[in-house]
Amino acid sequence: MKKVITFGEILLRLSTERHLRFSQAANLNATFGGGEFNVAASLANYGMDTEFITRLPMNDIGKAALREIRKAGVGTNHILYGGERLGIYFLETGASMRGSKVIYDRAHSAMAEIETGSIDWESVFRDAQCFHWSGVTPAISANAAAVCLEAVKAAHHIGLTVSADLNYRSKLWKYGKEPKEIMPGLLKYSHIIVGDLDSAFFMCGKEKEDPDYNDDAILGKLYDTLFQSFPDLKFATTTLRYSISASHQLIGGILYDRNTVYRSIIKEVDPVVDRVGSGDAFMGGLIYGLLHYPDDHQKTIDFASAACCLKHTISGDVNLASLDEINQLASGDSSGKVSR
Amino acid sequence: MKKVITFGEILLRLSTERHLRFSQAANLNATFGGGEFNVAASLANYGMDTEFITRLPMNDIGKAALREIRKAGVGTNHILYGGERLGIYFLETGASMRGSKVIYDRAHSAMAEIETGSIDWESVFRDAQCFHWSGVTPAISANAAAVCLEAVKAAHHIGLTVSADLNYRSKLWKYGKEPKEIMPGLLKYSHIIVGDLDSAFFMCGKEKEDPDYNDDAILGKLYDTLFQSFPDLKFATTTLRYSISASHQLIGGILYDRNTVYRSIIKEVDPVVDRVGSGDAFMGGLIYGLLHYPDDHQKTIDFASAACCLKHTISGDVNLASLDEINQLASGDSSGKVSR
Amino acid sequence: MKKVITFGEILLRLSTERHLRFSQAANLNATFGGGEFNVAASLANYGMDTEFITRLPMNDIGKAALREIRKAGVGTNHILYGGERLGIYFLETGASMRGSKVIYDRAHSAMAEIETGSIDWESVFRDAQCFHWSGVTPAISANAAAVCLEAVKAAHHIGLTVSADLNYRSKLWKYGKEPKEIMPGLLKYSHIIVGDLDSAFFMCGKEKEDPDYNDDAILGKLYDTLFQSFPDLKFATTTLRYSISASHQLIGGILYDRNTVYRSIIKEVDPVVDRVGSGDAFMGGLIYGLLHYPDDHQKTIDFASAACCLKHTISGDVNLASLDEINQLASGDSSGKVSR
Amino acid sequence: MKKVITFGEILLRLSTERHLRFSQAANLNATFGGGEFNVAASLANYGMDTEFITRLPMNDIGKAALREIRKAGVGTNHILYGGERLGIYFLETGASMRGSKVIYDRAHSAMAEIETGSIDWESVFRDAQCFHWSGVTPAISANAAAVCLEAVKAAHHIGLTVSADLNYRSKLWKYGKEPKEIMPGLLKYSHIIVGDLDSAFFMCGKEKEDPDYNDDAILGKLYDTLFQSFPDLKFATTTLRYSISASHQLIGGILYDRNTVYRSIIKEVDPVVDRVGSGDAFMGGLIYGLLHYPDDHQKTIDFASAACCLKHTISGDVNLASLDEINQLASGDSSGKVSR
Amino acid sequence: MKKVITFGEILLRLSTERHLRFSQAANLNATFGGGEFNVAASLANYGMDTEFITRLPMNDIGKAALREIRKAGVGTNHILYGGERLGIYFLETGASMRGSKVIYDRAHSAMAEIETGSIDWESVFRDAQCFHWSGVTPAISANAAAVCLEAVKAAHHIGLTVSADLNYRSKLWKYGKEPKEIMPGLLKYSHIIVGDLDSAFFMCGKEKEDPDYNDDAILGKLYDTLFQSFPDLKFATTTLRYSISASHQLIGGILYDRNTVYRSIIKEVDPVVDRVGSGDAFMGGLIYGLLHYPDDHQKTIDFASAACCLKHTISGDVNLASLDEINQLASGDSSGKVSR
Amino acid sequence: MKKVITFGEILLRLSTERHLRFSQAANLNATFGGGEFNVAASLANYGMDTEFITRLPMNDIGKAALREIRKAGVGTNHILYGGERLGIYFLETGASMRGSKVIYDRAHSAMAEIETGSIDWESVFRDAQCFHWSGVTPAISANAAAVCLEAVKAAHHIGLTVSADLNYRSKLWKYGKEPKEIMPGLLKYSHIIVGDLDSAFFMCGKEKEDPDYNDDAILGKLYDTLFQSFPDLKFATTTLRYSISASHQLIGGILYDRNTVYRSIIKEVDPVVDRVGSGDAFMGGLIYGLLHYPDDHQKTIDFASAACCLKHTISGDVNLASLDEINQLASGDSSGKVSR
Repeated sequence: MKKVITFGEILLRLSTERHLRFSQAANLNATFGGGEFNVAASLANYGMDTEFITRLPMNDIGKAALREIRKAGVGTNHILYGGERLGIYFLETGASMRGSKVIYDRAHSAMAEIETGSIDWESVFRDAQCFHWSGVTPAISANAAAVCLEAVKAAHHIGLTVSADLNYRSKLWKYGKEPKEIMPGLLKYSHIIVGDLDSAFFMCGKEKEDPDYNDDAILGKLYDTLFQSFPDLKFATTTLRYSISASHQLIGGILYDRNTVYRSIIKEVDPVVDRVGSGDAFMGGLIYGLLHYPDDHQKTIDFASAACCLKHTISGDVNLASLDEINQLASGDSSGKVSR
Repeated sequence: MKKVITFGEILLRLSTERHLRFSQAANLNATFGGGEFNVAASLANYGMDTEFITRLPMNDIGKAALREIRKAGVGTNHILYGGERLGIYFLETGASMRGSKVIYDRAHSAMAEIETGSIDWESVFRDAQCFHWSGVTPAISANAAAVCLEAVKAAHHIGLTVSADLNYRSKLWKYGKEPKEIMPGLLKYSHIIVGDLDSAFFMCGKEKEDPDYNDDAILGKLYDTLFQSFPDLKFATTTLRYSISASHQLIGGILYDRNTVYRSIIKEVDPVVDRVGSGDAFMGGLIYGLLHYPDDHQKTIDFASAACCLKHTISGDVNLASLDEINQLASGDSSGKVSR
Repeated sequence: MKKVITFGEILLRLSTERHLRFSQAANLNATFGGGEFNVAASLANYGMDTEFITRLPMNDIGKAALREIRKAGVGTNHILYGGERLGIYFLETGASMRGSKVIYDRAHSAMAEIETGSIDWESVFRDAQCFHWSGVTPAISANAAAVCLEAVKAAHHIGLTVSADLNYRSKLWKYGKEPKEIMPGLLKYSHIIVGDLDSAFFMCGKEKEDPDYNDDAILGKLYDTLFQSFPDLKFATTTLRYSISASHQLIGGILYDRNTVYRSIIKEVDPVVDRVGSGDAFMGGLIYGLLHYPDDHQKTIDFASAACCLKHTISGDVNLASLDEINQLASGDSSGKVSR
Repeated sequence: MKKVITFGEILLRLSTERHLRFSQAANLNATFGGGEFNVAASLANYGMDTEFITRLPMNDIGKAALREIRKAGVGTNHILYGGERLGIYFLETGASMRGSKVIYDRAHSAMAEIETGSIDWESVFRDAQCFHWSGVTPAISANAAAVCLEAVKAAHHIGLTVSADLNYRSKLWKYGKEPKEIMPGLLKYSHIIVGDLDSAFFMCGKEKEDPDYNDDAILGKLYDTLFQSFPDLKFATTTLRYSISASHQLIGGILYDRNTVYRSIIKEVDPVVDRVGSGDAFMGGLIYGLLHYPDDHQKTIDFASAACCLKHTISGDVNLASLDEINQLASGDSSGKVSR
Repeated sequence: MKKVITFGEILLRLSTERHLRFSQAANLNATFGGGEFNVAASLANYGMDTEFITRLPMNDIGKAALREIRKAGVGTNHILYGGERLGIYFLETGASMRGSKVIYDRAHSAMAEIETGSIDWESVFRDAQCFHWSGVTPAISANAAAVCLEAVKAAHHIGLTVSADLNYRSKLWKYGKEPKEIMPGLLKYSHIIVGDLDSAFFMCGKEKEDPDYNDDAILGKLYDTLFQSFPDLKFATTTLRYSISASHQLIGGILYDRNTVYRSIIKEVDPVVDRVGSGDAFMGGLIYGLLHYPDDHQKTIDFASAACCLKHTISGDVNLASLDEINQLASGDSSGKVSR
Repeated sequence: MKKVITFGEILLRLSTERHLRFSQAANLNATFGGGEFNVAASLANYGMDTEFITRLPMNDIGKAALREIRKAGVGTNHILYGGERLGIYFLETGASMRGSKVIYDRAHSAMAEIETGSIDWESVFRDAQCFHWSGVTPAISANAAAVCLEAVKAAHHIGLTVSADLNYRSKLWKYGKEPKEIMPGLLKYSHIIVGDLDSAFFMCGKEKEDPDYNDDAILGKLYDTLFQSFPDLKFATTTLRYSISASHQLIGGILYDRNTVYRSIIKEVDPVVDRVGSGDAFMGGLIYGLLHYPDDHQKTIDFASAACCLKHTISGDVNLASLDEINQLASGDSSGKVSR
């Protein structure tokens, strides 16, 4: 099977342990993550051939990130080097009614200052079948948005399947453009869109909708307006998340293929070990499912939702659940028995 | 707004991590806490001007305590220095049906051996509006009880609002006096009393009552007997706590102002990160509420209860939840969503 | 009261912290445990006189194990020394729908290579009243099975009460024998058998049964077939475990004495701190109960089930719950209140 | 005694433990430090009244820094709030022939973007006797340099003693100005200058000198050229450091008062626990000495050098050695005996 | 070989890691130790039969101490239970010129409040050959001193060899008696005395001496005055310690048998991992040597000195060096090569 | 430049922290290493293309090893999967006169049970220029020795430069063969031999020699006898190590090319952070030097020795020193100054 390429920023993640608040922490766990890397790492963990495109600073922090990408089994052949710093995000893990807290410190990063023309997309896309990007990249800087546009155009032109995770973050988009000025131009070249309708409509400049996600007919109708705006779109999909508390979540997913709304059963995650990256786990599961079960959309959404659930039980940004574990959960066994 | 003064003991808290039993712990987390300090630290965290009065030994353990008081933003200008040791408490954090375990090692502490006349209360209470004490202080030694009496008399005389948390601890009160011999003399000078009716009646030498806390009429009647004993009393209040397990608690609160019983909605805390100090968080919230929403007792009890809930999600004795977080929970949002 | 002797393997247990996956762990918690040792340690913790029989390698890992056995208060006078290595098991602690994972690395251990005739059982059993073994020992090697047979024969001959925990582990039994070829020969000399009917029937070569554990009549009938095979058997007993998730378990137990099925109430454990060794905690509770409450089987099964529940809240293989704590839970108080 | 004011940036310090390289670290120690804060914290630790002026971002990282400043007993009344991020530095602690490594990530910090006119220096300097700044501040941005100039002018005008630590860092000074364009304008208003002659001459645009630091006559002559350039200068001083390895340092100091070169004995530090901040410890000791022993320059340089030595044995940026410990070392006892 | 009995206090030791100062420590290592226990643990580690006599409080801290005594292989059959608290000592480990710091918090401990008549010394000394006590026990309280006197009298009467480590601690001896009022009465019943001449003369009320420890003649003469005071004394011995810094020590030892001064070669310890308990390691080595090499005093002092050296490389109070390791060092190999 | 291939075993390394003894460790650091992997990782760290050949079990421990190999940037394309377990070694890090201690637990590992014919060496050696093996591989089992012979023959046949590190470990070689029966047959196909003469002569069945390593003439003569036995040999080389203590080592190296003995200056490492793998760091440096400075043997031995020195300052098996750091040390700067 050919490669899946993802493009985005990888960040140093500094998180407190044992639900400590930032001001209590005498040390911080240091790992690395970022939406598009997380998707590539999920796919590599399922045994797929992947490549992650980003820009890393040539200091020891950038090199440590590079080592973690390699550890995940993700290809690093086309990574650019340059810039002043690796972006950082601080994470305080909540519990019960206290939500987790993210502080971004990613302005002026190597990736934010990437320049158009610096990546040879034709060479990147050789032997590839899919390209994945997310709404975080055009949100960090005008430069990143411009390079993202180069990428989706090239991918679309070469004939790759392009997937987009909307990933709306209100704390980003600080460089003078609004999502609706940028995102439609990128989504035009995409075939798969992930995100709730609220974000999708907002980022495309449509009026806000707050639909009943249990009503297939209404959902279909709303998604159809997206399909009309972006004729190349083949799939719209989203996780369904009910947040009972920071420690207790109900997770499902839906996949719409212009005809049918496929739904996975809602599952209960309690306790949540780490929910950051669970959307990326869903995305990775979706790409895996569409490629491996092209004719079984139900299986795809079940796989993606199970991957999303299991990610909640794993520390760090990246979903390290195995194919076996995900398939076992997707087929209904959530008993969590000891394997011995 | 003028200062809130609290008076009591701060202890070195040595707690096991990861629910380990004492005999399993190769190391102990070392923090500092104590009921009256915890109240001051809560209020300082809300931006209020506070001062904590205590007695610290002049060794490195006492100095470390002093640094933590300063870190909390609590005033240290009137702290006494002397004595042989800082009191200690050991804490083993339970889980599920295994309760947490506290071992006190606070006898002979600097605070237990405080002497009457050693604090210039007039100077302490300059620019102050409130004074807070709790039933722990008169429980540790005859000396501490005598100084506590000096304090409440002076505070009452100067016209401060005096609040008292009953904080009955059966493992204390070892120096030859029973609560009923001491507490009424202190409560006489207090305006706000916090504690369940069972403790209140016991510590005041009244017959035990086990009322239905859902019945406003009965509650009012019982509280009225307290108000009759202590004519200066304006408010009686308590948390309502249903302990499903060490990890799962239902938390609410009531506030009675001689006329009406105000109740906050019962909220579910699951899992509990650390419940020690949650009563002090309630107390801090109550003082904050009464000062900031003097005409809205419902808002006050909702704020105090939400502060109490959030404390359960925070490690250590002190409530580090922010005003924003407490207000968000008090207004009903307990979804614990990620802030990013 | 005379001694309880247990015989089996103690392993180095290497477990990840904070629910980390193996590939994430920069360090591993190092403790020691093993079914039969865990039973002895439970009993020693209740104040009983015990002795653990095993074979340890004469290297620093074996010596560290010896120190932990001593720390538990278990007798070490008859331990053999020799062999190349201490067996190891790796443990990854799951959460929610992700189950815990055990990787055995115990082949070729000192215990697996124990030789017949190397233990003077007569001397071991002096001053003893009970002997306990489990199905793990005959599962690890032909040698261990042979020595186990020596032991049960000697114990039976001398008149000790012999208890057997079936402990079926499909990842063991790799040396060429199936359980049904070995276990009946050992159970013949046993008086108490612990394990679910499914395992019992499978290990005795009977046809699989999946009975309704709520139906006393059916249970009794099925157990009676065991009693017919093993006429010396006096008690058959098992935990009842409903695994809602890796973090949430429902736990009860039943005890059958050829006449009556005694049941303890099902209790809810949430969250689970560590469920490894909870069966051994049940076993330890059962032996304690049968010896201390010989005429009150209900009390025995309640004690054993409560011990099993509390073990889930304690890290490591060994149940460190005290008699008081177990009795409090057995008598119905699972509120987990703070003791202070 | 009146206050000492220091002005500069405080950074989040993220350091690896146990001499790990950045790429090996699964977690980072998180503390706070920065040259001018370190000086204030030293002085506060000696019991002096101090105030630290800086600009902190209003996020949880900035607030954590604020709490650490308070913990050190340093005044925070004039701190500005605003900007996007707290500066960061990463520290990898070397050993033997492998030097420690600092990676700055402080561009675009709240302090770098401070604006002229935003601090009311007159109010800051009320009740103050000394003002301390260092060459790091003008090195981080044009804005910081401009505010630093405001500060030294105001301090000089009001009549404070102004001290300057040259602190040349080649990895800073990136905003388009060279030290020699900025530093002389700032030194003009200073009375005490700390730094080796090489840095001093370079930063003042003079030709490089590499003098024999053992020759008082030559040293005096070279320092005199500085005194000629800056007529208000009263003292020039520097540590003498011989780096045998990252773990083994020889430390002394000299103080020149336009007449005499005072020298402390060279002391051996082995092993070095943490040498970052040792220059600031020297600076703090110097200010303390000049204020407390105005007529005994030998005592001052001995105190400053001993403070510098002891800092090498203390983890973190800040010197936590007590007056007693420093005086004991300054008077010659470096035996490191156990105090018990 | 018959048992060695030691009598004294075991303390909870709370120490900072990585040379942190007390005020920096977010957690403390929790171990257990105390001079006389350390001696027993050394001997048990060499394979000898030992028993430790002390008084422990019946709380979880006391029980944790008990488990550690058992882990060390030391007998616990005669331990008393009672009292309010286990004594504590805080330890901050120094480096280079910063010495380690001990804070005692042991007043009012279970051991300090031991009562005369509570130990049946005749039963304790059955099957014993040696009894060891130290000057710490009579230093903690009048009660402890009185029980110590009971012990030495009984031991002497029964014919045991009695050894005494002077262990002078100026921070103890707070209950109203001076050493010279108590120690001679205890030393009268002792056969071996360990300690420098300075302490010995001071504690016996003799005039201070500061002899040249390299001059056998002078040493012999001074020791002879001790032998004259205590006619039953057979051996006087001491470590020789030159403290270059907290991290670098020179260690030797001398043993005088009324005729000859035996000396071990001075060895260099660099770095020191933990020097607390190194005197007890010397004491343990001495007892071992005198019992195993009764005719080779040179071998004894070499063994004791090597044990003392190796203790410096081991964390915690107790010497865990093996017989092989000590013998290898005693015979001159200090190269520290990797064993593999 | 073409690839360097190394072949051998990678082990799970479980080491105690802070110089703790095995019996004190509540947790163990878990990393991965092994002589031949360490060489490949060194070379990858210098930017070279490498491939590591081994056999890993298909369990989570084997997979974790695979991830670490990838993280190091070493190629994994030809790794075999199978077998029961990953080999383990336990490491206790000594200090001062206490040496580090290695306990091997590697019998029956996946690598020990590798089978001849299972590796397609022709395919492995495509695009390669060098092949490296060590004496550990033939020491672990007859199978491993046989596969090693296949490898060296194939490498020699294809024309690769073959290097051999003798790596004599007396605790291995347990399967019935002595080194002299196996090693000569392997060395016959090698061009570079690393190891001291003592090991070399012993493993080749020659009489023991203990030469003066400072005498070039004697060294040359002894090495010449090796060159006579193995005519294809071009270089003989060894580290020179003087072990003052476990914490203090003097390190140099010599390289003999049949004509001249090249020597690097002896350097002092104090303190040693971790000396395991320092020989492999030397080996990696040597291969790098011979390939990059083919005409400058002095530069090669200086580079290799500096790499060996720096490894002592780095935790774990693998040398993570950069080319810049090694070159700086090789050119004489061992001052360990802070880089900032």
